[in-house]
Order: sequence, then structure tokens, then C-alpha cells
Amino acid sequence: MPERDLQFLAELAAQLRVDSVRAAAAAGSGHPTSSMSAADLMAVLFSCHLRYDFTHPHNPGNDHLIFSKGHASPLLYALYKAAGAIDDDELLTFRKRGSRLEGHPTPRLPWVDVATGSLGQGLPVGVGVAMAGRLERLPYHVWVLCGDSELAEGSIWEAAEHAGTEGLANLTVIVDVNRLGQRGPTRHGWDTGAYARRFGAFGWHTIEIDGHDPGQIDYALGDACNTRRRPTVILAKTRKGEGVVEVENREGAHGKALKDPERAVEELGGVRSLHVEVRRPEDVPEPHRFETRMSAPPEYRVGDKVATREAFGAALAALGEARGDVVVLDGEVADSTKTEAFADACPERFFEMYIAEQQLVAAAVGLQVRGWKPYAATFAAFLTRAYDFIRMAGVSKASIRLVGSHAGVSIGEDGPSQMGLEDLAMMRAVYGSTVLYPCDANQAAALTTEMADVSGVSYLRTTRGGTPVIYQPGERFPVGGSRVLRRSPEDRATIVAAGVTVHEALAAADDLAASGVPVGVIDMYSIKPIDAAALVEAATTTGTLITVEDHRAEGGLGDAVLDAVGELGPRVVKLAVLGLPASATPEEQLADARIDRHAIADTVKRLL
Amino acid sequence: MPERDLQFLAELAAQLRVDSVRAAAAAGSGHPTSSMSAADLMAVLFSCHLRYDFTHPHNPGNDHLIFSKGHASPLLYALYKAAGAIDDDELLTFRKRGSRLEGHPTPRLPWVDVATGSLGQGLPVGVGVAMAGRLERLPYHVWVLCGDSELAEGSIWEAAEHAGTEGLANLTVIVDVNRLGQRGPTRHGWDTGAYARRFGAFGWHTIEIDGHDPGQIDYALGDACNTRRRPTVILAKTRKGEGVVEVENREGAHGKALKDPERAVEELGGVRSLHVEVRRPEDVPEPHRFETRMSAPPEYRVGDKVATREAFGAALAALGEARGDVVVLDGEVADSTKTEAFADACPERFFEMYIAEQQLVAAAVGLQVRGWKPYAATFAAFLTRAYDFIRMAGVSKASIRLVGSHAGVSIGEDGPSQMGLEDLAMMRAVYGSTVLYPCDANQAAALTTEMADVSGVSYLRTTRGGTPVIYQPGERFPVGGSRVLRRSPEDRATIVAAGVTVHEALAAADDLAASGVPVGVIDMYSIKPIDAAALVEAATTTGTLITVEDHRAEGGLGDAVLDAVGELGPRVVKLAVLGLPASATPEEQLADARIDRHAIADTVKRLL
Repeated sequence: MPERDLQFLAELAAQLRVDSVRAAAAAGSGHPTSSMSAADLMAVLFSCHLRYDFTHPHNPGNDHLIFSKGHASPLLYALYKAAGAIDDDELLTFRKRGSRLEGHPTPRLPWVDVATGSLGQGLPVGVGVAMAGRLERLPYHVWVLCGDSELAEGSIWEAAEHAGTEGLANLTVIVDVNRLGQRGPTRHGWDTGAYARRFGAFGWHTIEIDGHDPGQIDYALGDACNTRRRPTVILAKTRKGEGVVEVENREGAHGKALKDPERAVEELGGVRSLHVEVRRPEDVPEPHRFETRMSAPPEYRVGDKVATREAFGAALAALGEARGDVVVLDGEVADSTKTEAFADACPERFFEMYIAEQQLVAAAVGLQVRGWKPYAATFAAFLTRAYDFIRMAGVSKASIRLVGSHAGVSIGEDGPSQMGLEDLAMMRAVYGSTVLYPCDANQAAALTTEMADVSGVSYLRTTRGGTPVIYQPGERFPVGGSRVLRRSPEDRATIVAAGVTVHEALAAADDLAASGVPVGVIDMYSIKPIDAAALVEAATTTGTLITVEDHRAEGGLGDAVLDAVGELGPRVVKLAVLGLPASATPEEQLADARIDRHAIADTVKRLL
Repeated sequence: MPERDLQFLAELAAQLRVDSVRAAAAAGSGHPTSSMSAADLMAVLFSCHLRYDFTHPHNPGNDHLIFSKGHASPLLYALYKAAGAIDDDELLTFRKRGSRLEGHPTPRLPWVDVATGSLGQGLPVGVGVAMAGRLERLPYHVWVLCGDSELAEGSIWEAAEHAGTEGLANLTVIVDVNRLGQRGPTRHGWDTGAYARRFGAFGWHTIEIDGHDPGQIDYALGDACNTRRRPTVILAKTRKGEGVVEVENREGAHGKALKDPERAVEELGGVRSLHVEVRRPEDVPEPHRFETRMSAPPEYRVGDKVATREAFGAALAALGEARGDVVVLDGEVADSTKTEAFADACPERFFEMYIAEQQLVAAAVGLQVRGWKPYAATFAAFLTRAYDFIRMAGVSKASIRLVGSHAGVSIGEDGPSQMGLEDLAMMRAVYGSTVLYPCDANQAAALTTEMADVSGVSYLRTTRGGTPVIYQPGERFPVGGSRVLRRSPEDRATIVAAGVTVHEALAAADDLAASGVPVGVIDMYSIKPIDAAALVEAATTTGTLITVEDHRAEGGLGDAVLDAVGELGPRVVKLAVLGLPASATPEEQLADARIDRHAIADTVKRLL
């Protein structure tokens, strides 16, 4: 590399450090030292290798850069400034109310694909973006900047396994091995070999370099671009707080503005205003799209017994045939979740993610960055494994569709480890989420299709066993709606149910009607948003709502109903799973949990 | 190994297969084929290496055996039968209502340490049990049986990293590499070398064997016991369904009873009733206990501003000095959670788990198996990473204490990725959980101490910033209680708050009182169990409850209050975090989320 270029890179890196220090100083907080260690790495990336059109963030040829170490946001914003995307005034709004430059990057900035800040997530999401690139046959490269501390997260190794086995050569991870975590030294310090052995074992191309040597960095980034059939990890030995004696390679300097920022700026050579000309992306061909054909959702005959998971699978296959933008991921249980129907119909758009639920959800998030409509499925119980990823998908405002099968005690003999009993609580609490829970096959098929165009994180809860079909094929079930299944002016109470308990509620209502106690029944298939108007009407007319759910008493349907009518204050009685289930048949489980037809009827009688 | 012994081992393995087939046949479900692949491995372990006293499951010298592949429960129960712990009649109660022999093992059986069935958890928990052995200076060995599919879980590699780096030589993992997952072939099939490279890179001793050759198995298990300074993984190539042509090494035979169990039993040589004499454990010295000394919890002066996380840390350090059974684990943020105070006071009982929250919680579960009282801390937001482990800790009825700091929007500038806003919903939904949320330093200290003797999963939510001390040192705050902070016969409504919002509620009440609108204030520090009596009384006297929480509207304090008074039906109005926060100061955050003193006062005025 010519001396002139080396000089420019050194100057640019100094500017990035200066601007990181200044941004944090203006905010009075932030992570300047974690930014300073990676400044040389990013200076070379932006100057020599990244291909990105800042004026057109959606250019399909654009590379993708994900700061998995999201706390190094001052560095990212300093880079945006150097590239001319933001100005110095905006840089100094860092962490202030109303600024786009948040403490950790979010997609409020058009150049940020996903929110980071929960460590160990940027790489698995980057794997998803790389999968999209392969699917679309686009030449872009995915660059992920990781810290060394976050390599302790299991999700990193789920990603390493997936990318390594799939040979995602369009993915490069740059690890800023500055040896210091938040509290103190990391497990492996500057032993980049320890990380190289691990990534190497997972099938990656590994390069160990001095992360402050522009020549070595340039060589490594070029080598990464030229590597075929394997992803690359660049393990760069760096010094946290590089360039400023007050903090350089010192413990206790994590996550705070420098004490003397003016002196630091001076030490770094003062404020500069270099401009880096980021290479424009190649003109790329139209992204590959999949052929579609007319395909109607499945139809089920009223009265037949069909599992909602079956209908979901069949509807998903039909949707995939009709829409080329739908992709499906599964956690090695496609024969249970029934996504195997999609895998058979559209094999190129089906991704087996094996038993790695964090990477399952992260890949969905990565795929939607490029506009795909991902459905990711596993047992409802095992989605708990990915809760942090789901939470962060909410923060990213990512549109992903999650499907959890085998919900509730009604799965039967398998026992509590396999029962999704916390999933409604978990999913309801996610920002901007939609939570759907069908009770019959036609409704499940309709909601599966409906979800395709829902924004944000949406969730479909399916049931293992067959339930009677009660709706006609082709009926519509809009998000936020409900269905009144029993209503009369004489109703003494209204039972609010969803999924498997709808059928228990109907049976109880029939029994009660036969003994002269008419009650209403509402199928609350949309748990979030919930049909508050229908609930308020039922509460006003009957005064008593009884909620029944195959879920724990906390955070599920009952709480959603209580919330919707709280200001009105009707009597609300919740039936839900209170104890710890064990093995038993589905019918025994519903009875033992006191959420079956008999428990419902008993409750009504007790109340009236 | 003498021919006679080999003959016995072959016969025993055949019996284990037969009994696995019979148990699944009697149940009509279960995983016989996943049991049959590991039968030789376990036959040799039980006959030649395991040291266990089945009549005294709590013998401190006992080895620990964890079936991480919990679905192979028929094999485990067949082993218990062979060892004389259960009889054949009980074996055939498998998966039936009321039986101890559940679909996946749970601690209802006295020889089962923890519930498994969510894959990838048994190994990280085993790491915790091995840590306990080292802490107590006991010679027991921890044996974990894993499936090959579950090696895709990131939690396995968090465990591999911790055990490898710590050199836990008292831990051996036996991987039943039968190459077939639930849906089809695993990623690496029979390539045991792929797994060996990975574990080797993480510092493990690796042995690759034929998992159906008793001689090789015996050698490997012996080698594992004799290995120093490193954990051992035995990668055993096996055939799923081994011994029965109908299912042997065939796809589509996962997780179901055999079609023709009688023929299978015949093919395996018929029903046997061999007894295996498991070696008794050595007589071990008294487990090591730590010295204690008188140490009083910290005391704070009313009116001072102190963060609850500070008080938690100080109280924890005092508790550790006073009680030798307390251990503390942290996810590399001890300077934020403030467990560093304990680390300074009791360094031998502090475990740095680095940024690996699944292993953090799993290690706590493993340590409590041996009677330790673990406190595991990280940011509230990052506990979402371990939700599946927390859920399963509930199923195990494990007594662990989780502490989440930096809860809510009140953290300020760091932004939404760092804000615990779903933690109350998540923790409330766990079976048997206790959820505590202190508002001042003396209360935080008291609850920290109180938690030590709480059974099941308990959770303490702490706040980043300082809050005024409002309680006297030494006051008691029992689990399930609450504190009425403002009450008068003229109260027009009652504000129910917890944590940081208590102070906002008090300020609002003072403002409202000054303008002639008296309202009550309750500090609901125990969110689960909740003080229903206090709420019912407030609801009855004032008719209106206003809940205010620094948490999402779903599943938190508001829902808990609604649930407690649902049958009574007062008016309940919830104030909670509805939007997506960004960076701002703590005060701006509370105002923007409409959970500050002004929002509370406005709400009261709107309602009255």
C-alpha cells in the first residue's frame, strides 16, 4: 500500500477516534474506548473495501455492515460523518432525546439494518443477510464487527456452525480483540489463536492480524473478499482506547466518556474533517425472484377433526407457491410444526436451521432486511430459547412471523418440557407484536395467509392434536377481530376462549344451556391486538367474563381480556394452567388443569 | 475385558433395549429408538464406572448422571429397573397419568437432578454440578448423555467454553452420535471428527469410539475418569433403533412406539431380568464448607439517594459473609449489577460466567442441585437470553435466585436494547416463581436477604439510578406483602406502583393532595405472589386503581393487579411503557413513556 494511502488511513482513523471521543463527551456517556480500538479496522474497510451507496440505502448491490458490538456506536456515527451521510452537528446530538444517533444503533438510521446492543446478535443476523444474498444471487458482502467479549455467547457458535457448514463466503466477521470486557479482561485476552482454533473447527477461514496496522487490515479484508466456499473471520488484536494515554489498554475505562476529552482530542492530533469516498456498489442484475403459480389455501370440511398445525403447514405451502417472497425456516422439527409441506412445495426457500432457535430467529430477521417474508417455526416452548432475539426484533421493527406448535398442556404425554405455557406472555410483551391463536383448521389457514402482510413481530400459536373444524373455508379472520360463537339476550356470562379451549367452551355452553343457564362464547383468535369492542359489549350485557386458556395464568389471554375491560370493571374470572403438569393424555391434562368443559361449567355455576 | 463380562454387557444392553421398547409400547408413545442407540453406552457406564447409591440419592459421594437427551427417558427408566431402583410394573406406567416416569425425566424421581427435554440444557447444568463438586472438594463425577442433534444449540458451546477453560476434569459428556435427528439426518451425520475438532478447539479431551462396542466404551469411560485438567467428550458412533430391523438406522422412526413391539422384543432376544450392581460411591469426607462471620446487611439513611442495585450488592456481600452456602454468578457485568461487592467479600464463591446468560442460569441450576443458594445476575434485558433455562428451572422446581439490573426506561440514554421491559411478564409466567421489585435501598437489601430461603425460581428487579430511601433500615418486607404509603378515608383512587414508579406515585399524590384530590399509594414490591388483600381493600374503598410501571403494558404489575381484583371488578387503569423508547435522560424517558408524576396526576384528574 502506498505511503500516501497509509497516511490517509492513519489520519482517518485518528479522526474516527476524535469524533468518538467528541460524541461521547457531548453526550456525557457512551463507549468511546470500545470505538477507538476498532477505528483502524473500520477506516480501512470504509476506504478500501466496503461498497455502499449512502444516498440509496436500499440499493440491492449495497454491502451490509452490522455492528454486532453495538455499543461502539460512536465509531459508526463517526464513520457516517466521514462518509458524508451525517454532519458534525448531528454527530454531537449523540444519545440526546430525539436524535437518530441512539446509544446503540437502530434502524431509525436508514443505513442500519437491525438494532444491536444485545451482544452476540449481530453475527447471527448477519448470517441471515448473507443467506438472503445467496438466495437473490446478489454479489454484496456482509461485514460484521464483533467484540471479543461477545464470542462467549452461544448464539455466536450457532452462527459459526450455520455459516461454516453452509459455506457462506459472502460473510466476513471482524473481531476487535481488545482483550477488555466491561468488568475486566476477557477469558482469552489477546490470545487470538484461541478464537482462531474455534472458528477454524467450525469450518471458517481465519486470519489473525494486528488491528492497528492498516496494511495487515487491508490484506485481510481483501483476502476475505477473495475467499471461496467459506466465511472468513479476521481476528484483530487491538488496544481499547487506542491513542489516548488516559484510557489506552486500561481496565475501568469501559462505557464512559473520557475525563479530559479536550486533551484526548489534542493527543489524537485535533479535530479533522477528512472525507472518505466509499466505493459505490457494482450495478447488479435484478435480484433473483422465484416463480409463482396460482395456489389456493387448503379447505377443510366443517365437523372434521384437523390439527391447526396441519392447516398451517398446508396453507404455508400454498402461500409459498402463490408468493415468491415467502421463505420458511424451521428448527429441525418440520415434521411436527408441519412446515415440511412448504419444504416439499418450495425447497429452495426452505431453510433447515437445526436445533438452534437463536439462529433460527436471527436468520429470519436477517432475511427480512432484504424484504423477504420469513416464517420461522419450532415448538412454542422452544421459542423461549430465542426470547432476546425476538425482543430485539421488536426494537428493530423487523417484520418476522414466528410459529409455535405444540402449545399448552393439550399436547398430552410428552410432559411440561415440551409444553408452550409461557409463549403468549412472552410474545405479548414484545414491542409492536401481533399474537394469533386459531382454534380450527380453516381459521389457522386464513391467519397463516393473513400474517404475510403483518408488520412487526407476529406470532401464530398452533395445537398438536386435532380439533373440530367449526368455520367454513374462505371465511376471513382479520387481525384484531374475534368471533361470537354463542350469544343470546339471556346470557348470564360470556366465556372467552382461544385455540383448544374454544371447543371446551362450546361444549360447556351447550351443557349449561341444556340445564337452563345460557352463556355466550367468544373465540378470541387475535390475542394482540384484542377486540376490545366485542369484550366491552359482552361485559356490558352479561357482566361476567370467564376466560379459559391453555397457558399459564400470567400474561396470556386472561390478562389480555382484563386489560381490555379494566376501565369498565366487569367481573372477570380466569381459568388457566396453575400447577405443574406431568404426563397424561390430552383429555386428562385439560381436566387436571381445570380448563376443560367440566371446569368451565362448574365455574359458571359457582359464579351464578 | 473378559468374555464373561462382555457377554453380560451385551445381555444388559439387550435388556435395556427390550425394556425401552416395552415401556414405549405400553405408553403408545415415547422415544424407543433414541434409547436403543445409547443402550450399550449406558450399560457399560452403569456396570463398570458409575458410582451411585440408589438408596441414598443425596449421598454426597454419588456421581451425577444427566440425560441431556431427555427424550431417551425409556432408557433411563430401564436402567433404574436394572439397578433395582424401580420394578417392572412401574416401568410399564411410563407416560401414564400419575406415574413418576414422565415423558421426559423430572426430579419427581429422586435420582433425577433436573428436568430435561429441552435440548442443549443438560450439559450446561452438568457444568454447574461439576462446579459444585470442585467447590465442595468432592470426588464425584458428572456424566452427561447428549444427543448429536442438540450439539447445534449455542448453549452447548457456552458450556464447552466454560468447562474447557475451567478445566472441569470431573465432567464427561457422552454423545450418542446416531446421526438421525427428529426430522432427518443431522448436520454432520456420523462425522464424529467434526464434533471432535469443535470440542478439541474448546480445550476438551476427545475420544471417538464405536458406541456399540463395550470394550471401546469401557476404555473411553475409564480414560475419561483418568483425565486430568480437562473435561472429556466421548463421541460414540451409534445406530438409532439398534437391534431391530424395523427401525434400525432408518429415517421416520423418531419419537414413536414401534409398530410391532412383540417382534422387536423377540428380535432382541426376549424379556430379561438382569440386575446390574452399580458401584457404591467412596466414603467421602464432609463436603467443604466455607467459614462465615457475623455480618449485618447495609443500612441506608432515609432521604439519601441510593440505587437499589447498590443496596443489593452490599446486602449480597453481607449475606455471603454470614452464610457459607450462598454463591454468586454474574454475566460479566458485576460492576453494573453490583455483585462485585460479593466478589470482593467472598471471591471463592463468586463465578464470572462471562457474557453467556444460558450457562449463567444453568450453572445456578447445577449448583443448587448440591444445595447451594445461587444468585445469578445480569441486566434484566439480558435474562431474556436464558428464558428457556428459567422455564425449565421452574419445571425442575430448582431454587435459584435471578437478579436483573437496569430495568425499565429509567436507565436513560443507553436505549431500548439495554432496557428490561419484558422481564416481569417473562418471570411471572414461570411455574412457581417469585417476583420482587424494590423501590428503595433498605427494601432492596431486605429482599436480597429474604430471597435466600425462597423456594423455586425467584427474581429481584433492580434499578440503575439512585432513588430516595423511604424506609427505615431493618424494616421487614415479607414475600407476598405490600406497603401502604398514602391512605386517607377521602381517597378518590389508589395508585399502585413498584420500584422507580413508587417515587413518581408519591410525588403525584402530594401534588394531587395539594390541589384537593387525595389519593392512596401502595408500594407493591412483591409482584408475585401479590398482596391481593391489600388490593381488594383499596379497590373496595376507593373504587379505582391506577397502576404505574416501568415495563411494557403486557404481563407486568398492571396485569398482576388486574388479576388479583378481577373477580371484584373495580376500575383499573394501567400506565405502562407503550411505545418504543429511544435515547433520552431518565427523567425524559419517564415523561415520554407517560409513567412519571405528571402523567399519573393527569390520569387521576382525567378519571375523576
